[in-house]
Amino acid sequence: MELDFVAGLLARIPADARLEVPPGDDAAVLRPPAERRSVVTVDMLMEGVDFVLGPECTPQMVGHKALAVNLSDLAAMGARPEAAVAAVALPRAHGDTIGRGLLDGILALALKHGITLAGGDTNAWDGPLVISITAIGSVAPGRAWRRDGARPGDLLVVSGACGGSLLGRHLAVVPRVREALAIASRFDVHAAIDVSDGLSLDLARMMRASGTAALLDLPAIPIHPDAVRMSEAAGDGARPLDRALSDGEDFELLLALPPDDARRLAAEAVAVIGTPFTVIGEVVAGEGLTARFADGSTAPLIPRGYEHAFDR
Amino acid sequence: MELDFVAGLLARIPADARLEVPPGDDAAVLRPPAERRSVVTVDMLMEGVDFVLGPECTPQMVGHKALAVNLSDLAAMGARPEAAVAAVALPRAHGDTIGRGLLDGILALALKHGITLAGGDTNAWDGPLVISITAIGSVAPGRAWRRDGARPGDLLVVSGACGGSLLGRHLAVVPRVREALAIASRFDVHAAIDVSDGLSLDLARMMRASGTAALLDLPAIPIHPDAVRMSEAAGDGARPLDRALSDGEDFELLLALPPDDARRLAAEAVAVIGTPFTVIGEVVAGEGLTARFADGSTAPLIPRGYEHAFDR
Repeated sequence: MELDFVAGLLARIPADARLEVPPGDDAAVLRPPAERRSVVTVDMLMEGVDFVLGPECTPQMVGHKALAVNLSDLAAMGARPEAAVAAVALPRAHGDTIGRGLLDGILALALKHGITLAGGDTNAWDGPLVISITAIGSVAPGRAWRRDGARPGDLLVVSGACGGSLLGRHLAVVPRVREALAIASRFDVHAAIDVSDGLSLDLARMMRASGTAALLDLPAIPIHPDAVRMSEAAGDGARPLDRALSDGEDFELLLALPPDDARRLAAEAVAVIGTPFTVIGEVVAGEGLTARFADGSTAPLIPRGYEHAFDR
Repeated sequence: MELDFVAGLLARIPADARLEVPPGDDAAVLRPPAERRSVVTVDMLMEGVDFVLGPECTPQMVGHKALAVNLSDLAAMGARPEAAVAAVALPRAHGDTIGRGLLDGILALALKHGITLAGGDTNAWDGPLVISITAIGSVAPGRAWRRDGARPGDLLVVSGACGGSLLGRHLAVVPRVREALAIASRFDVHAAIDVSDGLSLDLARMMRASGTAALLDLPAIPIHPDAVRMSEAAGDGARPLDRALSDGEDFELLLALPPDDARRLAAEAVAVIGTPFTVIGEVVAGEGLTARFADGSTAPLIPRGYEHAFDR
């Protein structure tokens, strides 16, 4: 990358006491917090797959989203975000403008969550924009929220509401970092995952990892107003509930907690944490998902959501 | 990504005592070594820019290179490699075969250097192959090799030999990890950088960061036999020495050390470390690079090498 362009980007990264060697060297050197584990996650976003650059999706918004989805993963581990590094493949046309916009989006969100951008790799090519961010968080030993810890008897709780994220929340992602840290200090969480590919699909992943099954109370699922708007506009027969179960990119927290903790979280969340959490079902022995309807009847629920696919 | 495909990849990652939560969760949880700093670096490789997939460049070789260039960055910090995470955008055609090949290459090199592959993000798209690896190493507090620590009077030392890497070494990258750790325990290194974009260009970066100038003894530059072969074959007038100064992708270590340390390193390296290190010049006050010829005469040296570029 042109030395001056990269130097210009580096100059905009705020100093941080956690950085023993700042960005711009062969690697960054971080002072990890004493007596904490390092939590590491990576997500790559590709133009044309995860976003389409244009008036409704600026480079800033892509930078925001690229970091936000990683912070959502850290939140789903109950971890405190500490640092991030970013690698980008910039389209040769307007690559410098795009690069500056990405950095704007990343730095604004990093500042909000008190994390340091520790380094990166800036490339140009003739292909579409690709950005890969690796985020590093910290958590006390043995306290990370795994997805394989759900137990029969646990209740399932979800933050916020799901569905219809394509109307804008898929870009303006609000990672549930603050909520996760508040919960980690006050509740016993057995398992956690963030809803990235669809509530039912990510729930199925948690249940499969835990060796358990889930009974989902359909009337309890919090449906986002965007899901209602999308169903009205699309006219494709997909009900708002279907959207809540399968649209994905909600980046809400899905948790399994002992019943008392779950009920207390749902009752106190708005007042104490500022975000609603809703009990949506329970963990039972067995495998797969079962839907429970308003009249108490049940039926198997096929998990649906976003899955990448290959040609073979 | 298809659950079964990713599960198949995850199953091939060896267990590691440093992983409190293994790959496959929202994030990996690492036990960082006590009383060490974390060293973090990221590099992205793009098909058509950094490699061209084909009979001479298999997915395994790309996986190897993607990790190796990161390990070279850790070596240039004097750091011990600990862990890595990988994000990939796989072409939809044959994406599963390519993904498995990449992992083969990554895991073989990870095993060789005792590092753990802690997680990743696997995507498919209609674009070319993109892979971004973030490597995490460790170093004692205050002991990381920076590029801004060269001082007038230091001698410049380079490992191996430079030039002509396009004949194969640009893919079969051998990161100087072992050499760096051996040197770190026995010599006082003031500054270090790895030669990724060209010996003269990377030297210029070290000098600029250090606020110093370099006097380069051209007859002392170790020229790789591949540089000679390329000059004979290409017939473009580029001398082997020009190639050694500017070809790049050598991934050799360029170090600045006090004169006694530098001379001792050059004298002992082959016997003690198994790799030649050569004194190629000295650090002086001022800025820029100066070439010193065999007859003692000097001339300004324009740093050349690989730089990405934008259309504006």
